[in-house]
Amino acid sequence: MADKKLSGAGLRGQSAGETALCTVGKSGSGLTYRGYDIKELAEKVSFEEVAYLLAKGELPNQSQLDDYKKRLKSLRVLPQELKDVLERIPKDAHPMDVMRTGASMLGNLETEESFDEADAHIERLLATFPGMVLYWYRFTHDGVRIDTDSEELSIGAHFLRLLHDKSPSKLHADVMNTSLILYAEHEFNASTFTARVCASTLSDLHSCVTGAIGSLRGPLHGGANEAAMELIEDMKDADDAEQKLMGMLERKEKIMGFGHAIYRDFDPRNDIIKAWSKKLSEEVGDSRLYEVSARCEEVMRREKNLFPNADFFHASAYNYMGIPTKLFTPIFVMSRVTGWTAHVKEQRANNRIIRPSADYTGPESRAVPALNER
Amino acid sequence: MADKKLSGAGLRGQSAGETALCTVGKSGSGLTYRGYDIKELAEKVSFEEVAYLLAKGELPNQSQLDDYKKRLKSLRVLPQELKDVLERIPKDAHPMDVMRTGASMLGNLETEESFDEADAHIERLLATFPGMVLYWYRFTHDGVRIDTDSEELSIGAHFLRLLHDKSPSKLHADVMNTSLILYAEHEFNASTFTARVCASTLSDLHSCVTGAIGSLRGPLHGGANEAAMELIEDMKDADDAEQKLMGMLERKEKIMGFGHAIYRDFDPRNDIIKAWSKKLSEEVGDSRLYEVSARCEEVMRREKNLFPNADFFHASAYNYMGIPTKLFTPIFVMSRVTGWTAHVKEQRANNRIIRPSADYTGPESRAVPALNER
Repeated sequence: MADKKLSGAGLRGQSAGETALCTVGKSGSGLTYRGYDIKELAEKVSFEEVAYLLAKGELPNQSQLDDYKKRLKSLRVLPQELKDVLERIPKDAHPMDVMRTGASMLGNLETEESFDEADAHIERLLATFPGMVLYWYRFTHDGVRIDTDSEELSIGAHFLRLLHDKSPSKLHADVMNTSLILYAEHEFNASTFTARVCASTLSDLHSCVTGAIGSLRGPLHGGANEAAMELIEDMKDADDAEQKLMGMLERKEKIMGFGHAIYRDFDPRNDIIKAWSKKLSEEVGDSRLYEVSARCEEVMRREKNLFPNADFFHASAYNYMGIPTKLFTPIFVMSRVTGWTAHVKEQRANNRIIRPSADYTGPESRAVPALNER
Repeated sequence: MADKKLSGAGLRGQSAGETALCTVGKSGSGLTYRGYDIKELAEKVSFEEVAYLLAKGELPNQSQLDDYKKRLKSLRVLPQELKDVLERIPKDAHPMDVMRTGASMLGNLETEESFDEADAHIERLLATFPGMVLYWYRFTHDGVRIDTDSEELSIGAHFLRLLHDKSPSKLHADVMNTSLILYAEHEFNASTFTARVCASTLSDLHSCVTGAIGSLRGPLHGGANEAAMELIEDMKDADDAEQKLMGMLERKEKIMGFGHAIYRDFDPRNDIIKAWSKKLSEEVGDSRLYEVSARCEEVMRREKNLFPNADFFHASAYNYMGIPTKLFTPIFVMSRVTGWTAHVKEQRANNRIIRPSADYTGPESRAVPALNER
């Protein structure tokens, strides 16, 4: 990688525009959303407040928040045509493909005809994503057609309710809330940048979100929490974790969930989700996954000077709440849609089409040979 | 954060990577695909040869071409689940949303499980796109469930056949062939760049193409030929065109189909499609749209020193062949999918995740106020 030209290497370090939404890795504050530190947000507010903050620019007051949550709750029912589509997607499909298709289909049924409608479509996507992926999941895996409405007020609790057919404990609802906050926004990451490139052609909101889901699907981007789960699920205890990890390091295998493209020393989201994972392990009375994860963290720091990123302790946390591994990345979508769509609005407000150049490395000019001379 | 300042907004003039596929606006040759001048390609080869060239690196010989066309022809039948989905998309949907959803749905049914399968999925998309959009179009507009197979060997003729229920004339098949060649590839334009950003996360081919369709949908990108048609359709004759255009210029209204982000003096594709538009006007025996378009070209050059881009004479050409305006941009997809997917393969072959930086313009660090203090 080091011998590559900067310009050819993923635009790293090059500014592709302005944003007022987020700072990542700025000294003194690891991650901020519109100026608020992620640690303080995770401790003090709900995901719905963060979603509002990203969409509107400021945190809501009590009555704004009440209205917002009520409105989101009222938008959860899926159109019949969308349910018909979801029923036709096979059980073994990639859940991110399901969400990509669901978002795209919704765009046919409820098209953004004018940018004035953006906020309404953003709220609709935010409200429908849990039901969208779980309608498909429960239909293909459990053979039931679920009601995508629920009495749960928060998006995190609503997701767990649709998944498990019962109201989640306060602890689980709190973990989901924090998790959705942590994943909500992260500057010009690849999926957000996809959304902005799409927005720069003045395309519609569903195109931007559909494209972003496709990018988040990639194993270098959104799939890390699933890969972390695959890493830890067969580790019997902390010592077994150490032994297995040392073997992988020796064989130079890729270990997912560690290090980060932007953060150099630590991921500010890690301590937060790690603490919740510990609490969950105590509630469940089974510390294996937490201890295994903590040992992986130790070994990776000692051996490679690498730190766990936001994804690593999410794996054990989600698993403790009974969430199937294949639904980990879709939760990322339910959260990040807030960041993506805030970036779409920002791009539209000060737009120039994103159209970089390329360094040509192909053949010199040449004449077309006749078919019988090739 | 950003180490490097932009030379222009929208990454204009900034290299975002390497490509061996295309040069745009290089002196001496306006547009080349893998070293071959667009003018020579448009004159001498078929679109299928261009598709093969972009996918495999070299033009096919006779037997390779025969095999390739036979294979593409064999891949035209849509899965029943995809047809079920298309039937649930309303008649008034944006046809680009239909294609975006169709491509995404196909990704659920025929997922790219390994990058070794890329060529097979590329061929499948290339073969199914005409049938995908026309199955929906004919079902919702004409109330028929068409057979998406046909005896036509070329993709252009196959499209016209499915649209009109009859084999196209040689002239029409030739125009479609040329049009598909002209739109096939254009370096790091916004939709192609979308596909590359998505590919850089190592996501699957259908995600890349779905995202690219979403970006091409934007009126600053793929919609220009439709906008050009709206411009000319009500112009009664050349003089009326001049009068209307002068009025629009006076009112500083946006005129679509002129100028280009990269080309400075002319678009090398314009002369080619313009000549075909003239031939079509003679065949139809109705020169109005051609003369109107030619006068628009004159006026725009005289008044604004602007030249028609590839899209402008496409409007009249497509109209002469009886293609509904709303299907213009989907034809762009049928063609550009060759360029997009060649870029996906290229990105994968030498990948680093595309993750630029941003200049922060938001609030300074601030403390989270309590809910009752907002």
